[in-house]
Amino acid sequence: MGSLEPVEKLVRELARLPGIGTKSAQRLAFHMLMQDGGLMKDLAAALLSAKERVKRCAVCGNLATERLCPICADPKRSSDTLCVVRDARDVLALEKAREFRGKYHVLGGVLSPVDGVGPEQLSIDPLLKRIKEEGVQEIIVATNPDVEGEATALYLARIIKPSGVRVTRIAHGVPIGGNLEYVDEITLSRALAGRRLME
Amino acid sequence: MGSLEPVEKLVRELARLPGIGTKSAQRLAFHMLMQDGGLMKDLAAALLSAKERVKRCAVCGNLATERLCPICADPKRSSDTLCVVRDARDVLALEKAREFRGKYHVLGGVLSPVDGVGPEQLSIDPLLKRIKEEGVQEIIVATNPDVEGEATALYLARIIKPSGVRVTRIAHGVPIGGNLEYVDEITLSRALAGRRLME
Repeated sequence: MGSLEPVEKLVRELARLPGIGTKSAQRLAFHMLMQDGGLMKDLAAALLSAKERVKRCAVCGNLATERLCPICADPKRSSDTLCVVRDARDVLALEKAREFRGKYHVLGGVLSPVDGVGPEQLSIDPLLKRIKEEGVQEIIVATNPDVEGEATALYLARIIKPSGVRVTRIAHGVPIGGNLEYVDEITLSRALAGRRLME
Repeated sequence: MGSLEPVEKLVRELARLPGIGTKSAQRLAFHMLMQDGGLMKDLAAALLSAKERVKRCAVCGNLATERLCPICADPKRSSDTLCVVRDARDVLALEKAREFRGKYHVLGGVLSPVDGVGPEQLSIDPLLKRIKEEGVQEIIVATNPDVEGEATALYLARIIKPSGVRVTRIAHGVPIGGNLEYVDEITLSRALAGRRLME
Protein backbone atom coordinates (compact mmCIF):
# COMPACT_ATOMS: atom_id res chain seq x y z
CA MET A 1 0.00 0.00 0.00
CA GLY A 2 3.06 2.16 -0.69
CA SER A 3 1.68 5.67 -0.51
CA LEU A 4 -1.41 5.34 1.71
CA GLU A 5 0.30 7.42 4.35
CA PRO A 6 -2.81 8.44 6.37
CA VAL A 7 -3.84 4.80 6.76
CA GLU A 8 -0.36 3.76 7.82
CA LYS A 9 -0.19 6.60 10.31
CA LEU A 10 -3.56 5.60 11.80
CA VAL A 11 -2.42 1.98 12.10
CA ARG A 12 0.81 3.09 13.80
CA GLU A 13 -1.08 5.25 16.30
CA LEU A 14 -3.59 2.49 17.10
CA ALA A 15 -0.76 -0.01 17.54
CA ARG A 16 0.68 2.18 20.32
CA LEU A 17 -2.29 1.27 22.51
CA PRO A 18 -1.72 -1.54 25.02
CA GLY A 19 -2.79 -4.98 23.86
CA ILE A 20 -3.21 -3.84 20.25
CA GLY A 21 -0.62 -5.21 17.85
CA THR A 22 -0.13 -4.23 14.22
CA LYS A 23 -2.65 -6.82 13.02
CA SER A 24 -5.42 -5.63 15.35
CA ALA A 25 -4.57 -2.01 14.57
CA GLN A 26 -5.00 -2.75 10.87
CA ARG A 27 -8.30 -4.45 11.52
CA LEU A 28 -9.55 -1.48 13.56
CA ALA A 29 -8.32 1.10 11.03
CA PHE A 30 -9.91 -0.71 8.09
CA HIS A 31 -13.14 -1.22 10.01
CA MET A 32 -13.34 2.50 10.70
CA LEU A 33 -12.43 3.44 7.11
CA MET A 34 -15.09 1.08 5.72
CA GLN A 35 -17.81 2.73 7.77
CA ASP A 36 -19.51 5.81 6.47
CA GLY A 37 -20.82 6.96 9.85
CA GLY A 38 -19.16 9.43 12.19
CA LEU A 39 -17.20 6.74 14.07
CA MET A 40 -13.77 8.29 13.45
CA LYS A 41 -14.86 11.87 14.06
CA ASP A 42 -16.70 10.90 17.25
CA LEU A 43 -13.70 8.99 18.57
CA ALA A 44 -11.34 11.85 17.71
CA ALA A 45 -13.65 14.31 19.47
CA ALA A 46 -13.90 12.06 22.55
CA LEU A 47 -10.10 11.75 22.68
CA LEU A 48 -9.53 15.49 22.45
CA SER A 49 -12.26 16.30 24.98
CA ALA A 50 -10.93 13.74 27.48
CA LYS A 51 -7.35 14.92 26.93
CA GLU A 52 -8.39 18.49 27.63
CA ARG A 53 -10.88 18.10 30.45
CA VAL A 54 -9.63 15.17 32.52
CA LYS A 55 -7.01 15.83 35.17
CA ARG A 56 -6.07 14.44 38.58
CA CYS A 57 -7.97 15.11 41.83
CA ALA A 58 -5.86 17.51 43.91
CA VAL A 59 -6.51 15.43 47.04
CA CYS A 60 -6.59 11.74 46.16
CA GLY A 61 -5.06 11.53 42.67
CA ASN A 62 -8.14 9.95 41.09
CA LEU A 63 -9.27 11.18 37.66
CA ALA A 64 -11.30 14.38 37.89
CA THR A 65 -12.83 17.06 35.69
CA GLU A 66 -12.84 19.63 38.53
CA ARG A 67 -10.22 20.32 41.21
CA LEU A 68 -11.68 17.45 43.26
CA CYS A 69 -12.86 14.10 41.93
CA PRO A 70 -16.57 13.19 42.39
CA ILE A 71 -15.71 11.03 45.42
CA CYS A 72 -13.61 13.61 47.30
CA ALA A 73 -16.25 16.24 46.48
CA ASP A 74 -19.07 14.06 47.87
CA PRO A 75 -19.96 15.28 51.40
CA LYS A 76 -21.54 11.88 52.17
CA ARG A 77 -18.18 10.06 51.91
CA SER A 78 -16.08 10.16 55.06
CA SER A 79 -12.31 10.35 55.46
CA ASP A 80 -12.40 7.95 58.43
CA THR A 81 -11.30 5.17 56.12
CA LEU A 82 -8.99 5.61 53.13
CA CYS A 83 -8.68 2.87 50.57
CA VAL A 84 -5.21 2.95 48.99
CA VAL A 85 -5.06 1.76 45.37
CA ARG A 86 -2.50 1.66 42.58
CA ASP A 87 -4.35 3.70 39.98
CA ALA A 88 -7.64 5.31 39.04
CA ARG A 89 -8.84 2.15 37.30
CA ASP A 90 -8.89 0.37 40.65
CA VAL A 91 -11.09 3.13 42.07
CA LEU A 92 -13.58 2.43 39.27
CA ALA A 93 -13.47 -1.32 39.98
CA LEU A 94 -14.01 -0.88 43.73
CA GLU A 95 -16.78 1.69 43.22
CA LYS A 96 -18.67 -0.86 41.14
CA ALA A 97 -18.76 -3.18 44.17
CA ARG A 98 -20.80 -0.46 46.00
CA GLU A 99 -19.37 -1.65 49.31
CA PHE A 100 -16.91 1.04 50.32
CA ARG A 101 -18.21 4.40 51.58
CA GLY A 102 -14.92 6.04 52.57
CA LYS A 103 -12.49 7.88 50.32
CA TYR A 104 -9.60 6.73 48.15
CA HIS A 105 -5.94 7.48 47.76
CA VAL A 106 -4.31 6.73 44.41
CA LEU A 107 -0.60 5.86 44.69
CA GLY A 108 0.07 6.22 40.98
CA GLY A 109 1.89 2.88 40.86
CA VAL A 110 3.43 0.28 43.15
CA LEU A 111 6.95 -0.20 44.47
CA SER A 112 9.06 -1.91 41.83
CA PRO A 113 12.84 -1.54 42.21
CA VAL A 114 13.34 -3.27 38.85
CA ASP A 115 11.43 -0.50 37.08
CA GLY A 116 13.07 2.18 39.24
CA VAL A 117 9.88 2.89 41.21
CA GLY A 118 10.69 3.70 44.83
CA PRO A 119 8.55 5.38 47.52
CA GLU A 120 9.50 8.84 46.17
CA GLN A 121 7.86 8.07 42.82
CA LEU A 122 4.54 7.21 44.48
CA SER A 123 2.00 9.49 46.15
CA ILE A 124 3.03 8.37 49.66
CA ASP A 125 3.98 11.71 51.26
CA PRO A 126 0.56 13.18 50.34
CA LEU A 127 -1.00 10.03 51.88
CA LEU A 128 0.88 10.55 55.20
CA LYS A 129 -0.18 14.21 55.14
CA ARG A 130 -3.84 13.23 54.61
CA ILE A 131 -3.64 10.71 57.48
CA LYS A 132 -2.51 13.52 59.76
CA GLU A 133 -4.87 16.22 58.52
CA GLU A 134 -8.10 14.37 57.75
CA GLY A 135 -8.31 12.35 60.99
CA VAL A 136 -8.08 8.98 59.22
CA GLN A 137 -8.84 5.93 61.42
CA GLU A 138 -8.13 3.09 58.99
CA ILE A 139 -6.10 2.55 55.85
CA ILE A 140 -7.27 -0.32 53.64
CA VAL A 141 -4.45 -1.32 51.32
CA ALA A 142 -6.08 -2.57 48.11
CA THR A 143 -3.05 -3.02 45.87
CA ASN A 144 -3.04 -6.12 43.66
CA PRO A 145 -2.05 -9.43 45.26
CA ASP A 146 1.17 -9.74 43.23
CA VAL A 147 4.81 -9.32 44.31
CA GLU A 148 4.90 -5.53 43.84
CA GLY A 149 1.43 -5.03 45.33
CA GLU A 150 2.31 -7.08 48.41
CA ALA A 151 5.65 -5.30 48.86
CA THR A 152 3.88 -1.95 48.61
CA ALA A 153 1.29 -3.08 51.18
CA LEU A 154 4.01 -4.20 53.60
CA TYR A 155 5.92 -0.94 53.12
CA LEU A 156 2.81 1.16 53.76
CA ALA A 157 1.92 -0.86 56.87
CA ARG A 158 5.43 -0.36 58.23
CA ILE A 159 5.47 3.43 57.80
CA ILE A 160 1.84 4.10 58.77
CA LYS A 161 1.47 1.87 61.85
CA PRO A 162 3.69 4.08 64.10
CA SER A 163 1.12 6.87 63.73
CA GLY A 164 -1.44 4.63 65.45
CA VAL A 165 -3.70 4.26 62.41
CA ARG A 166 -5.15 0.79 61.73
CA VAL A 167 -3.74 -0.65 58.47
CA THR A 168 -5.72 -3.48 56.86
CA ARG A 169 -5.34 -5.49 53.67
CA ILE A 170 -8.17 -6.65 51.40
CA ALA A 171 -8.94 -10.37 51.76
CA HIS A 172 -7.45 -12.89 49.36
CA GLY A 173 -9.20 -16.17 48.65
CA VAL A 174 -11.29 -18.16 46.23
CA PRO A 175 -13.25 -15.77 44.00
CA ILE A 176 -17.05 -16.04 44.10
CA GLY A 177 -18.20 -18.27 41.26
CA GLY A 178 -14.71 -19.75 41.12
CA ASN A 179 -13.96 -23.43 41.06
CA LEU A 180 -11.56 -24.88 43.67
CA GLU A 181 -10.15 -27.20 41.05
CA TYR A 182 -8.92 -24.31 38.93
CA VAL A 183 -7.71 -22.00 41.69
CA ASP A 184 -3.92 -21.81 42.11
CA GLU A 185 -2.26 -23.16 45.26
CA ILE A 186 -1.18 -19.78 46.66
CA THR A 187 -4.75 -18.49 46.53
CA LEU A 188 -5.96 -21.71 48.15
CA SER A 189 -3.43 -21.49 50.96
CA ARG A 190 -4.48 -17.84 51.49
CA ALA A 191 -8.12 -18.92 51.48
CA LEU A 192 -7.38 -21.53 54.15
CA ALA A 193 -5.26 -19.21 56.28
CA GLY A 194 -7.93 -16.51 56.06
CA ARG A 195 -10.83 -18.83 56.97
CA ARG A 196 -13.63 -17.28 59.00
CA LEU A 197 -15.95 -18.75 61.62
CA MET A 198 -19.43 -19.41 60.27
CA GLU A 199 -22.03 -18.05 62.64
CA MET B 1 -17.27 7.74 38.70
CA GLY B 2 -20.60 9.57 38.51
CA SER B 3 -19.67 12.79 36.80
CA LEU B 4 -16.53 11.93 34.79
CA GLU B 5 -18.45 12.45 31.58
CA PRO B 6 -15.45 12.85 29.22
CA VAL B 7 -13.97 9.55 30.41
CA GLU B 8 -17.28 7.74 30.00
CA LYS B 9 -17.73 9.18 26.53
CA LEU B 10 -14.24 8.06 25.51
CA VAL B 11 -14.92 4.55 26.84
CA ARG B 12 -18.23 4.42 24.92
CA GLU B 13 -16.55 5.48 21.68
CA LEU B 14 -13.70 2.98 22.06
CA ALA B 15 -16.21 0.21 22.83
CA ARG B 16 -17.82 0.80 19.41
CA LEU B 17 -14.71 -0.61 17.75
CA PRO B 18 -14.87 -4.28 16.72
CA GLY B 19 -13.43 -6.72 19.23
CA ILE B 20 -13.24 -4.09 21.97
CA GLY B 21 -15.69 -4.58 24.83
CA THR B 22 -16.39 -2.19 27.68
CA LYS B 23 -13.61 -3.67 29.83
CA SER B 24 -10.95 -3.30 27.12
CA ALA B 25 -12.26 0.15 26.28
CA GLN B 26 -11.84 1.18 29.93
CA ARG B 27 -8.33 -0.23 29.98
CA LEU B 28 -7.41 1.68 26.82
CA ALA B 29 -9.00 4.92 28.01
CA PHE B 30 -7.26 4.78 31.39
CA HIS B 31 -3.95 3.88 29.80
CA MET B 32 -4.17 6.92 27.57
CA LEU B 33 -5.28 9.20 30.40
CA MET B 34 -2.39 8.03 32.59
CA GLN B 35 0.16 8.94 29.94
CA ASP B 36 1.44 12.47 29.74
CA GLY B 37 2.68 12.21 26.16
CA GLY B 38 0.79 13.20 23.05
CA LEU B 39 -0.79 9.75 22.58
CA MET B 40 -4.38 10.98 22.56
CA LYS B 41 -3.73 14.05 20.44
CA ASP B 42 -1.70 12.02 17.93
CA LEU B 43 -4.39 9.38 17.66
CA ALA B 44 -7.12 12.02 17.24
CA ALA B 45 -5.08 13.74 14.53
CA ALA B 46 -4.46 10.43 12.73
CA LEU B 47 -8.19 9.64 12.85
CA LEU B 48 -9.22 13.01 11.43
CA SER B 49 -6.53 12.96 8.74
CA ALA B 50 -7.46 9.43 7.63
CA LYS B 51 -11.16 10.31 7.69
CA GLU B 52 -10.54 13.32 5.50
CA ARG B 53 -7.92 12.05 3.07
CA VAL B 54 -8.72 8.38 2.50
CA LYS B 55 -11.29 7.49 -0.14
CA ARG B 56 -11.90 4.65 -2.60
CA CYS B 57 -9.97 4.08 -5.81
CA ALA B 58 -12.22 5.06 -8.73
CA VAL B 59 -11.22 1.93 -10.65
CA CYS B 60 -10.76 -0.96 -8.23
CA GLY B 61 -12.40 0.16 -4.98
CA ASN B 62 -9.21 -0.18 -2.91
CA LEU B 63 -8.38 2.55 -0.37
CA ALA B 64 -6.74 5.57 -1.99
CA THR B 65 -5.65 9.10 -1.22
CA GLU B 66 -5.80 10.14 -4.90
CA ARG B 67 -8.35 9.26 -7.58
CA LEU B 68 -6.48 6.00 -8.20
CA CYS B 69 -4.96 3.73 -5.55
CA PRO B 70 -1.17 3.19 -5.63
CA ILE B 71 -1.65 -0.15 -7.39
CA CYS B 72 -3.94 1.07 -10.19
CA ALA B 73 -1.65 4.09 -10.63
CA ASP B 74 1.45 1.89 -10.95
CA PRO B 75 2.36 1.55 -14.66
CA LYS B 76 4.36 -1.61 -13.89
CA ARG B 77 1.22 -3.54 -12.83
CA SER B 78 -0.75 -5.07 -15.68
CA SER B 79 -4.48 -5.55 -16.09
CA ASP B 80 -3.99 -8.96 -17.70
CA THR B 81 -4.86 -10.57 -14.40
CA LEU B 82 -7.33 -9.16 -11.88
CA CYS B 83 -7.43 -10.53 -8.36
CA VAL B 84 -10.96 -10.21 -6.94
CA VAL B 85 -11.14 -9.73 -3.17
CA ARG B 86 -13.77 -8.93 -0.58
CA ASP B 87 -12.29 -5.74 0.86
CA ALA B 88 -9.25 -3.48 0.95
CA ARG B 89 -7.77 -5.42 3.87
CA ASP B 90 -7.37 -8.44 1.63
CA VAL B 91 -5.44 -6.32 -0.87
CA LEU B 92 -3.02 -5.43 1.91
CA ALA B 93 -2.65 -9.08 2.92
CA LEU B 94 -2.01 -10.26 -0.66
CA GLU B 95 0.42 -7.41 -1.35
CA LYS B 96 2.49 -8.57 1.61
CA ALA B 97 2.98 -11.92 -0.12
CA ARG B 98 4.77 -10.03 -2.98
CA GLU B 99 3.63 -12.72 -5.40
CA PHE B 100 0.93 -11.04 -7.45
CA ARG B 101 1.90 -8.43 -10.04
CA GLY B 102 -1.52 -7.81 -11.60
CA LYS B 103 -4.24 -5.49 -10.37
CA TYR B 104 -7.08 -5.94 -7.89
CA HIS B 105 -10.81 -5.55 -7.83
CA VAL B 106 -12.48 -4.96 -4.46
CA LEU B 107 -16.05 -6.33 -4.28
CA GLY B 108 -16.93 -4.48 -1.09
CA GLY B 109 -18.34 -7.64 0.50
CA VAL B 110 -19.46 -11.15 -0.40
CA LEU B 111 -22.85 -12.59 -1.33
CA SER B 112 -24.86 -13.21 1.82
CA PRO B 113 -28.63 -13.51 1.37
CA VAL B 114 -29.07 -13.67 5.18
CA ASP B 115 -27.58 -10.17 5.51
CA GLY B 116 -29.41 -8.94 2.43
CA VAL B 117 -26.27 -8.76 0.30
CA GLY B 118 -27.02 -9.70 -3.30
CA PRO B 119 -24.97 -9.13 -6.48
CA GLU B 120 -26.38 -5.57 -6.78
CA GLN B 121 -24.79 -4.60 -3.45
CA LEU B 122 -21.33 -5.67 -4.63
CA SER B 123 -19.01 -4.05 -7.15
CA ILE B 124 -19.75 -6.70 -9.82
CA ASP B 125 -21.00 -4.53 -12.69
CA PRO B 126 -17.83 -2.41 -12.55
CA LEU B 127 -15.83 -5.67 -12.59
CA LEU B 128 -17.61 -6.88 -15.76
CA LYS B 129 -17.00 -3.47 -17.34
CA ARG B 130 -13.27 -3.66 -16.48
CA ILE B 131 -13.04 -7.17 -17.94
CA LYS B 132 -14.39 -5.81 -21.21
CA GLU B 133 -12.42 -2.57 -21.31
CA GLU B 134 -9.03 -3.49 -19.85
CA GLY B 135 -8.45 -6.66 -21.89
CA VAL B 136 -8.37 -8.94 -18.83
CA GLN B 137 -7.15 -12.52 -19.49
CA GLU B 138 -7.64 -14.07 -16.07
CA ILE B 139 -9.72 -13.44 -12.96
CA ILE B 140 -8.31 -14.90 -9.72
CA VAL B 141 -11.11 -15.13 -7.16
CA ALA B 142 -9.49 -14.64 -3.76
CA THR B 143 -12.54 -14.46 -1.50
CA ASN B 144 -12.29 -16.25 1.85
CA PRO B 145 -12.82 -20.02 1.85
CA ASP B 146 -16.06 -19.83 3.85
CA VAL B 147 -19.66 -20.38 2.75
CA GLU B 148 -20.22 -16.80 1.51
CA GLY B 149 -16.79 -16.58 -0.08
CA GLU B 150 -17.28 -19.85 -1.95
CA ALA B 151 -20.78 -18.86 -3.08
CA THR B 152 -19.42 -15.54 -4.34
CA ALA B 153 -16.61 -17.34 -6.20
CA LEU B 154 -19.08 -19.74 -7.86
CA TYR B 155 -21.37 -16.86 -8.83
CA LEU B 156 -18.49 -14.88 -10.37
CA ALA B 157 -17.24 -17.92 -12.29
CA ARG B 158 -20.74 -18.50 -13.67
CA ILE B 159 -21.22 -14.93 -14.96
CA ILE B 160 -17.64 -14.31 -16.15
CA LYS B 161 -16.89 -17.59 -17.95
CA PRO B 162 -19.25 -16.89 -20.92
CA SER B 163 -17.04 -13.91 -21.84
CA GLY B 164 -14.17 -16.34 -22.43
CA VAL B 165 -12.00 -15.06 -19.57
CA ARG B 166 -10.18 -17.69 -17.45
CA VAL B 167 -11.58 -17.72 -13.89
CA THR B 168 -9.34 -19.30 -11.23
CA ARG B 169 -9.66 -19.75 -7.48
CA ILE B 170 -6.80 -19.45 -4.97
CA ALA B 171 -5.61 -22.84 -3.67
CA HIS B 172 -6.91 -24.24 -0.38
CA GLY B 173 -4.83 -26.63 1.67
CA VAL B 174 -2.65 -27.11 4.70
CA PRO B 175 -1.06 -23.77 5.63
CA ILE B 176 2.75 -23.59 5.64
CA GLY B 177 4.01 -24.23 9.16
CA GLY B 178 0.67 -25.88 9.95
CA ASN B 179 0.33 -29.22 11.64
CA LEU B 180 -1.75 -31.94 9.95
CA GLU B 181 -3.02 -33.04 13.33
CA TYR B 182 -4.67 -29.68 13.97
CA VAL B 183 -5.98 -28.99 10.48
CA ASP B 184 -9.74 -29.46 10.06
CA GLU B 185 -11.08 -32.25 7.83
CA ILE B 186 -12.47 -29.98 5.11
CA THR B 187 -9.08 -28.34 4.63
CA LEU B 188 -7.44 -31.78 4.57
CA SER B 189 -9.84 -33.11 1.96
CA ARG B 190 -9.20 -29.95 -0.12
CA ALA B 191 -5.45 -30.45 0.32
CA LEU B 192 -5.75 -34.05 -0.94
CA ALA B 193 -8.04 -33.18 -3.85
CA GLY B 194 -5.70 -30.35 -4.85
CA ARG B 195 -2.53 -32.43 -4.68
CA ARG B 196 0.19 -31.60 -7.22
CA LEU B 197 2.78 -33.75 -8.91
CA MET B 198 6.25 -33.35 -7.41
CA GLU B 199 8.81 -32.84 -10.15
